[in-house]
Parts: sequence; C-alpha cells; structure tokens
Amino acid sequence: MNRILLSAFLLLFTVTAGAQQRYAMVIHGGAGTILRSQMTPEKEKAYTAALQKALQAGYAILKKGGSSVDAVEAAVRVMEDSPLFNAGKGAVFTADGKNELDAAIMDGRTLSAGAVAGVTVIRNPVTAARAVMERSKHVMLIGKGAEQFAKEAGLEIVDPSYFYTEERWRALQRAKALDSTATQLDHADTTKKGAVNRDHKFGTVGAVARDKQGNLAAATSTGGMTNKKFGRVGDAPVIGAGTYANNETCAISCTGWGEYFIRLSVAKTVSDLIEYKGLTLKAAADELIMKKVPALGGDGGLIAIDKEGNIAMPFNTAGMYRGTVTEDGKVEIRIYKD
Amino acid sequence: MNRILLSAFLLLFTVTAGAQQRYAMVIHGGAGTILRSQMTPEKEKAYTAALQKALQAGYAILKKGGSSVDAVEAAVRVMEDSPLFNAGKGAVFTADGKNELDAAIMDGRTLSAGAVAGVTVIRNPVTAARAVMERSKHVMLIGKGAEQFAKEAGLEIVDPSYFYTEERWRALQRAKALDSTATQLDHADTTKKGAVNRDHKFGTVGAVARDKQGNLAAATSTGGMTNKKFGRVGDAPVIGAGTYANNETCAISCTGWGEYFIRLSVAKTVSDLIEYKGLTLKAAADELIMKKVPALGGDGGLIAIDKEGNIAMPFNTAGMYRGTVTEDGKVEIRIYKD
Repeated sequence: MNRILLSAFLLLFTVTAGAQQRYAMVIHGGAGTILRSQMTPEKEKAYTAALQKALQAGYAILKKGGSSVDAVEAAVRVMEDSPLFNAGKGAVFTADGKNELDAAIMDGRTLSAGAVAGVTVIRNPVTAARAVMERSKHVMLIGKGAEQFAKEAGLEIVDPSYFYTEERWRALQRAKALDSTATQLDHADTTKKGAVNRDHKFGTVGAVARDKQGNLAAATSTGGMTNKKFGRVGDAPVIGAGTYANNETCAISCTGWGEYFIRLSVAKTVSDLIEYKGLTLKAAADELIMKKVPALGGDGGLIAIDKEGNIAMPFNTAGMYRGTVTEDGKVEIRIYKD
Repeated sequence: MNRILLSAFLLLFTVTAGAQQRYAMVIHGGAGTILRSQMTPEKEKAYTAALQKALQAGYAILKKGGSSVDAVEAAVRVMEDSPLFNAGKGAVFTADGKNELDAAIMDGRTLSAGAVAGVTVIRNPVTAARAVMERSKHVMLIGKGAEQFAKEAGLEIVDPSYFYTEERWRALQRAKALDSTATQLDHADTTKKGAVNRDHKFGTVGAVARDKQGNLAAATSTGGMTNKKFGRVGDAPVIGAGTYANNETCAISCTGWGEYFIRLSVAKTVSDLIEYKGLTLKAAADELIMKKVPALGGDGGLIAIDKEGNIAMPFNTAGMYRGTVTEDGKVEIRIYKD
C-alpha cells in the first residue's frame, strides 16, 4: 500500500514539475468576419506565414530561457511590421485619414504594465508600451506626450505615411460611404444597421506567453476601428480590459469590439474568475467570450495562457487569426471556427 | 410556532424592503498627505462647505427620484467648479504648465460607461464623459478628438486659462524644483526620495450613488499628478481601475497613485471580490486599499456603495476629503483619519 502511495506521489510530482517547466506562446491577429468564402489561397498563405514568423520570433526567445515579456514583445513586433494586420504598418485609418495606434504590455511577475494610446509616429507601439512600463513610473501615456517620451527613449520614429496601406485606405472609403447615413455624433456600426460591411473585423494583434521560469506576460497592439472619430481608444491599451497578466492566474490579450471589452474589464475578469471563483482558464475565458460579451451586444475573442501553461482561444465571431507554439516547437495555426 | 415564523418572515421582509429603498451618495475630494497640522480653520471650513455643496447637489436629485447617474454627475460638477480640488478649475499643472483633465462615469444599470482623457478646454470633463457614454458608441475619447466631440455635443468650452489657480501654479514650481534631480524619463516621486513634498496629495474627486430605483452609478474627475509629463493618464478615466459601477455588486470611485490602481484594476476587483468570492463591500474594499495597493507600493483610497446601500470609504493615506448623505438627509463630512 505504501509503495502504491509513493508511486502516486512520484507521479504527481513528475506531472507538477513538468507543468512548471512548460513554456508556450499564443498569438492572435484579430477576430471578426473572417470567412473562408472571402479568402483566397494566396491571402491565407500570407496570413499563415506571418503568424508563423511571429510565433517563431517568440519561441526562439522562450527556448533559450528568455522572458515571456521579451517573447510577447517580439511576436507582436513581427505582426506590427506586417501590413496584413491592423497594428503598426497596416493599421486602419481614422475618419481623418490618419493612423492612430494603441498598445499595451504587462508583466505577470511584477504586475508592471505600460500602454500608449493615440500615437501616430512610433513604428512599434508595443515597444513604446514596454518603454513606458520599464523606463517611466507611469502606466499609460497618450498622444503627443507619448510620442515625445518614445523619442527621448530612443525608439524608432517614422513618418505617419509609413503606416499607409492601400487596402486600409480603400476600407476607409467604403466605411465612410456606409457611415454617411449615421448621425454626426454616433460612430456607425454598419453591421448593426443591416449594411454588409466586409471590413467588420478586428485586426488587433496580441500575444501571451509563459516562459521557462513560469512567468506570464501579455501584449496587445492595434489601429482600432476603421473610420474611428474623436480620438477613440479601444480596449487594447486599457489594462484589465484588453490586456492583463498575473503570474498567479493567467495572461490575456483580447481582440474585438473594444467598447464592450472595456465595460466588462474582460481580461481582469477572466483572471478574477480563476482567482476568486476557482474556474479553469477555459471556463473563465468562455464565461466572458461566449456569455458576458455577447449578452451585452459585443463580439470578439481572446487568447490566454494560465500559470500551468494551459491555453484557451475562445471567440464568438466567424474567425480569429490565431496560433500556438509549445515547448516541443510544435506550431499550430488556425483561422476559421472549424 | 407558526406565528413566530410569520413574524420573523415579516421582519425579514421589512428589512429587505427597507434596504431596497435606501438611497445615498458618497463623495471624495481626494486622498493624500492631508494633515491637521498643515490645515487652517479657514481652509477646513472652505473644504467642508464645498463638499457639503456637492453632497446637496446630488441629494436633491436622489430625493426627488432622479437617477444615480444624474446625482454623481451633479456632485462631481460642483467639485470640478471649485478651485479647491484637483479637477476642473483648480486642476494641477503638467510639466508643460498646462492642465490636462481626465474623467469617467459609469451606469451600473446598463454597464454603460464614458471617459475622456487629456482634455484641456472642456469646463466639466465629467459631463463630457457622460456625453461619450450616452451620445456616442464609444467609451473612451482622448485629447483633441475628445474636445472636438464635446464641442459638437454642445458642451461648455473654456479657454485653458480658466483652469489656472495660483496655488496649483506655485505647486508646480515647487515640484519642478524637487524633481530637478530626477532622470529625464522618470517621473520623480519625491516622497519616495526622502524629499518633503507637501503637494503629495491626490485631489481627484469622485462620487458614487444608489438611487430610489436601486440603480448604482460612479463618476471620477481629476487633473492627475502635478508636474506630470508625456501625456500621462492615471486611473480615473480607466474603467475598471478608478471608476466602476454594476447594479449587481457596487459602484466605486478611487483616488490615489493612479499607476497602482491601474495595475490592480482596483475598482473592478472590488466588484469581483463581492461577486465571485462573496466578500462584503467593506471586506472587498479593504482587501484592495489596505492590502493589495500598499503591498505593491501604492497609496490612496476609494469610496464605494453596494446594491444594498452599504457604504465604504477606506484610505491608507493621512487623510481623504470625503462625505456621505443618506436618505434622511443626514450629511457627514470627514477629512482626517480620526
């Protein structure tokens, strides 16, 4: 009997120790109306390649014992630099024809966080968010002030035209045409008005990771909503809404209709459901994405990793660009529901 | 025996029904180093009168059956218009000698929320936050865009010089002198460097209320930190950090060192401790203000009211300008710990 108990104990120990070693990363390139019927093989191939490149950038860091903060920043930078995603180069246009970018990063080990919002000349907003986290006593910097900070921190500054892509410019023109029936003050959500807006997707990018030391981190970067007005800021740079990380629970990055994610503090609530209600990561993430967000009228998805390395990637839209890499180097990339 | 049970039931019913009718409001005018030794009788009288005026503005609305949203907006407007508090007129100056204002409001009935950050020409930022909540599909607007929205919404626009007060200007000069030893990128927190900074107080204002219909609301407004740089935004306009309201749990408005309140999502966490861990309002609020915030190195306080009308006002600083008004019209105003 004692030998059986000892065996059980050793097994438990091995499993636990194994879990403690598990490192992994999850990324997303946005959720939304991503339909197979509207995708070409070339486009699908391009997205897959970009997601793969982002995963490999993070994995290379995690594999050699680097930090989860380094890994999520590296993965998000790759997606910011790709014109395919609504972050960095390739960001959507505001109603004024500008690209206003938001990003955040959080270190689950120290609960340190940094965010920038409404920036227009910083090539990699996620790196600016990290500089805010590590080189200032602040968490959130906005607009010209954030840009001044990034300049003083020596980050790469670009001309606003760097962010231009023809596809996003055409998307703005389509959105403007659809929105012209909307009232002056309301941001038109054309999908709710019956109009077919094929640009109704949330191309926010994000990454969450657990490193060899068991530290969690999350990062999110976005251009926001096409045709946004009035300096609108979504959930991505709002710590607790679109981005959150805590070693005791999980790391989260969201993508979706930001207003709903802010009102529900989605990322922090997932963490609190684990910490205070004892839910699993999957149950907690589903509670928000499959219940609370749609109940309020919103949509989107999130990626999450918990302190044991479990992964969740729920979304309630047609698709979500997403991918995982685990410590065996195995990469999985998915776009649609099925 | 049956009669005893019936009596017990009736008593329970009466108590419950009573609680459902309870309306009340709580306000704060900021927490921080507010010491009796540095206060004059005239100053104390002025603060008490201003807090009283704010409480009465909200109470008048609640008493006649108005909404908690109306009440918290009215109370915060009074404090924004008073030069005594760090919000609206009387806001602290940025390092550039400007007044950059942030505010948020949330309706616990619908979980609707609105916030503005980094605005410089809107007389009452809390009213702008409310306009964002009710007249746009957005939650957070920043900078010039938020100002453009406020103009189009017909709100009162003022010259930036409206916000000037001599006392805050002198505070900036003192802070600059103390901060001159700090590094370029770091915001100097002089209190942590041993310097005696008598301006280390967080004059943010806020209000939470429960109306006759049992609806909860919260609002917060601030000028941020003296000598702040780089478009810094604190917790006040971050939904879930400095401001939160949910009819199912509580309404919260925070004041303190905003960065710590953002990193902990203080307001939403209080709500989640009630909802998911079954804590009382007092226990949940204390968990954040007396434990989590100081454990991370931050300080400040919050005001809260729960769905039954219970009130909590914890702070871990020397003082917090605060007051309550209950449905009997009884006003209580306190400044110091004792």
